[in-house]
Amino acid sequence: MKNWENLVNEQMSEAIAALQRYSQQPSISAQGKGILETVEILKEFIQEAQGEWKVLDDCGGNPVIYAVFEPSANGNPNKSILFYNHYDVQPPEPLEEWLYPPFGAEIHDGKMYARGVSDNKGDLIVRLQAISILQKNGGLPCRVKFMIEGEEEIGSPTLSQVLEKHADLFKADATIWEWSQKNKADQIEMIMGVKGMCYMQLECEGSDIDVHSQYGSVFDNPAWRLIQALATMRSVDNRITVEGFYDNIIPPTEELLAWSKAYPFDAKGAKEIFGLKRPLIAEESNARDAFLFEPTMTVCGIESGYNGQGTKTVLPKRAQVKLDCRLVPGQTPEDIANKISRHLEIHGFGDIQAHMLNGLLPFRSDVNHPFVRTAIKTAEKVYGENNIALLPNFGGSGPMSQFGEFLGMEQPIVSIGCSWWDDRIHAPNESIRLADFEQAIRYMIELFVTYGKEESN
Amino acid sequence: MKNWENLVNEQMSEAIAALQRYSQQPSISAQGKGILETVEILKEFIQEAQGEWKVLDDCGGNPVIYAVFEPSANGNPNKSILFYNHYDVQPPEPLEEWLYPPFGAEIHDGKMYARGVSDNKGDLIVRLQAISILQKNGGLPCRVKFMIEGEEEIGSPTLSQVLEKHADLFKADATIWEWSQKNKADQIEMIMGVKGMCYMQLECEGSDIDVHSQYGSVFDNPAWRLIQALATMRSVDNRITVEGFYDNIIPPTEELLAWSKAYPFDAKGAKEIFGLKRPLIAEESNARDAFLFEPTMTVCGIESGYNGQGTKTVLPKRAQVKLDCRLVPGQTPEDIANKISRHLEIHGFGDIQAHMLNGLLPFRSDVNHPFVRTAIKTAEKVYGENNIALLPNFGGSGPMSQFGEFLGMEQPIVSIGCSWWDDRIHAPNESIRLADFEQAIRYMIELFVTYGKEESN
Repeated sequence: MKNWENLVNEQMSEAIAALQRYSQQPSISAQGKGILETVEILKEFIQEAQGEWKVLDDCGGNPVIYAVFEPSANGNPNKSILFYNHYDVQPPEPLEEWLYPPFGAEIHDGKMYARGVSDNKGDLIVRLQAISILQKNGGLPCRVKFMIEGEEEIGSPTLSQVLEKHADLFKADATIWEWSQKNKADQIEMIMGVKGMCYMQLECEGSDIDVHSQYGSVFDNPAWRLIQALATMRSVDNRITVEGFYDNIIPPTEELLAWSKAYPFDAKGAKEIFGLKRPLIAEESNARDAFLFEPTMTVCGIESGYNGQGTKTVLPKRAQVKLDCRLVPGQTPEDIANKISRHLEIHGFGDIQAHMLNGLLPFRSDVNHPFVRTAIKTAEKVYGENNIALLPNFGGSGPMSQFGEFLGMEQPIVSIGCSWWDDRIHAPNESIRLADFEQAIRYMIELFVTYGKEESN
Repeated sequence: MKNWENLVNEQMSEAIAALQRYSQQPSISAQGKGILETVEILKEFIQEAQGEWKVLDDCGGNPVIYAVFEPSANGNPNKSILFYNHYDVQPPEPLEEWLYPPFGAEIHDGKMYARGVSDNKGDLIVRLQAISILQKNGGLPCRVKFMIEGEEEIGSPTLSQVLEKHADLFKADATIWEWSQKNKADQIEMIMGVKGMCYMQLECEGSDIDVHSQYGSVFDNPAWRLIQALATMRSVDNRITVEGFYDNIIPPTEELLAWSKAYPFDAKGAKEIFGLKRPLIAEESNARDAFLFEPTMTVCGIESGYNGQGTKTVLPKRAQVKLDCRLVPGQTPEDIANKISRHLEIHGFGDIQAHMLNGLLPFRSDVNHPFVRTAIKTAEKVYGENNIALLPNFGGSGPMSQFGEFLGMEQPIVSIGCSWWDDRIHAPNESIRLADFEQAIRYMIELFVTYGKEESN
């Protein structure tokens, strides 16, 4: 049996050099900087690890890279894993707050500092280096695919089209998602899903032009009307009262509820960080479960009439509200959008127009899927049995939804990576700890080897 | 007995010359144009009519002119009338839409065209010319005072201070307000009051910074909170449900209700002009009374969070609403503001801050006051018995409130003037009909003479 720990250790200087090279190349989707140069580097990396690639640029947007690494003669060609990563990074600004150059990839005190090194360049190098080590030591035990997109930091606007058009390329038995972190208790997080989203805009029109407010006792007011309509949709005690909103929800199993205890939801900390003025709307003891398992209906914005300094005596011509509903398994954006429209109709607000601006399915992996079990077992081996935090889903939403939609809801997705809770992603002085980087390579090798050996599922 | 009709007619070329000179002088408060030049012209006019003046500039803002004309030896020094006028005008823009120069005061087809000629320069000249004619024909039958302010078109920001500080100068038995018009039925309007105003801003704070909307099931949302609070303040059928809001209202008398029928409130026309999308909230048959006699609570503006294009997943840190309550006799702004604050408290929204941004008392003259009766009787004589439209109050608010507040709520105010419904005030091609101008001078002379002869009231 091979000593993977030693083999990884021997590879480290090469792995760090690759990470440095990749992190020194800006690839800022929001600013359109360095995209094509980054694609060239990735092609080289894939070739060096004996993979093949396609640059998919037929859906507009920044190119998506598809890569595939074939199993060795001893490997199992009927098993496949897909990795999702993104090569784009957040802008580095504000530059003056960086201790080291944001594209310098300097190493200080065991950490590499660079914009994107934790989100998400480190994880791609982890995965490619694991493959390289395996290639040098008998080859891959199964087929490995990659989707590496370049627009994650700007909301993955073309991802759906790419997945829909090239679903056959990307289909695999299981997906490893881009990223995860060690939490404050030094547990590695493994995340299995996301909430969905039904983001609605509701609009109420009163007149063609703004009216003098002296007519307030005679003309209807679209702002009042929208307020009255909204007040029927969520109660004073914050229960969503749209008819049927909670129908169809698949409640979390006891197992999921038990797992969720690992989620580091720190209500007291959040109160301080955000400067909350009001008590939580969930029981403090239940805040974590509310965060993970309950759907939401958030007013993200409401606007009507005059909102500047002082007074303006106007009866506004229109009013609008933006509502973000986060969905949990069993709910679908189309169904929720229909229920909101029907609710407005039922309650006498049929003139209020409701449009869905964004719809994402919720996604949650079957935690009893053999691949998920293997991923957990392997993590226990590499990180230690008590150092795993299993999270049924993020509180937020994300492109995991589209993977479910286009590659199959039955295919499990597990997010696990090489980050640390204080890596400062999206902020100045982003970094990764090189020890986490090395450990993550070891984990990936163990996962490949263990998964390849198991009976096909 | 003098033939006033002939005397007025003989004065007309002089009166028109004065109106032309005054209208050719720009006096645009919003742009600070021609203010001091206008004050100089007014001093001359007052002197020519044998009056005395003071320029009040001790409260900041554009100067206010106080003028007084003493009664003749045969007149009654114990009777006095105050006129309210303003010398400032709206900006003339858009210039390209004027048929004649906006400060040319050209006469075409019996009309004089100029910015401000109808609002409100014509009326000042009417009143000064009436005084001049009386001075040449035996003198004034009573004392006549003027307040001529220079900031009406920008909301009279310093009027209250001037009235408070110089109340003794301006006190009189009755006030004639700046202006009125002949309506489409060719009736001269006589308006006796205004609604008051309690303009509130309500603010709800949720956090120090905007929060990611994934926390929507855990953190309270100030936008939802404000919506829920507002929904308790006005019912779906548009009744104001703030506790005690309608208490203290002095209902209009049968006489006022009968008079109000003259008010040209054209619900069908309004629907077209404003392009209303919704049915009226008052019965169509009752729209006029609702407009004149009911208080309002109008959302003039509401704002929270993100309201631009597309989606932003934010849980806003704060929300605010601007509420314009128009008040009717019996209501006061302070009392209504207190009731709104108390309502929020009672309904569990004590954290929502409510501030009054503007407070104006309602004002309605006692229509049985002898001066009001005289003003009506005189109008019937000059305009014809069926050509009078008596309006208990405007639907809107205005500085008449401050006159009530500082000079006495018992002192009647009647607004009557020389305009016509199609004079296009505030719009390009503002004009007055010279026949209306002449008739208004006649009316003023009759009013002075009749009022001076009557027993003191």
